[in-house]
Amino acid sequence: MFAQLPDPPYYAVIFSSLRTPGEAGYGAAAARMMELAGQSPGFLGAESARSAEGFGITVCYWRSLAEIAAWKRDAEHQIAQQQGRAQWYAGFRLRVAKVERAESWDKA
Amino acid sequence: MFAQLPDPPYYAVIFSSLRTPGEAGYGAAAARMMELAGQSPGFLGAESARSAEGFGITVCYWRSLAEIAAWKRDAEHQIAQQQGRAQWYAGFRLRVAKVERAESWDKA
Repeated sequence: MFAQLPDPPYYAVIFSSLRTPGEAGYGAAAARMMELAGQSPGFLGAESARSAEGFGITVCYWRSLAEIAAWKRDAEHQIAQQQGRAQWYAGFRLRVAKVERAESWDKA
Repeated sequence: MFAQLPDPPYYAVIFSSLRTPGEAGYGAAAARMMELAGQSPGFLGAESARSAEGFGITVCYWRSLAEIAAWKRDAEHQIAQQQGRAQWYAGFRLRVAKVERAESWDKA
């Protein structure tokens, strides 16, 4: 669901991926990575969607580029990154962007 | 699927939304908006995923902020925006970000 974020500026890591067929522990590992990222300094929130065909987008929001870099180096996250390439993903794209403007709308 | 993009910098419009129940012409309108955006100057590509629960993320990539603003003002797109609030969405978030770095990985 929607992340509760402060006003911009902040950073977005846009991670799009295509899953390989089969579960292979992916769901549990993805949940663990979200839990771990949530404890990482500078993590602001995340939004995620994956279609039935296996294409997914997760956007994680961070306070700073330095904190994104620290999360990338986290030891348990590094193991998950390796397993992602070995097992879970047929491909991915990762884009780091600075959010400059944000709008919200909710049905009254 | 994955968008084919030039090297950064470029801009991302991250649109996350929760659909209302029911189709109400959404699929056809979404496809038409992608077709129309694709003809809009400065459009670089898009990636999109929506879960079975109705939460979706579409990221459209653009060359410049001015071209994003022009697309927002497009007459047919404006009608779709109105219909989105009236019918298709329970809520949405729209974030405009400057992509500074990108990585790709595909299984060999």
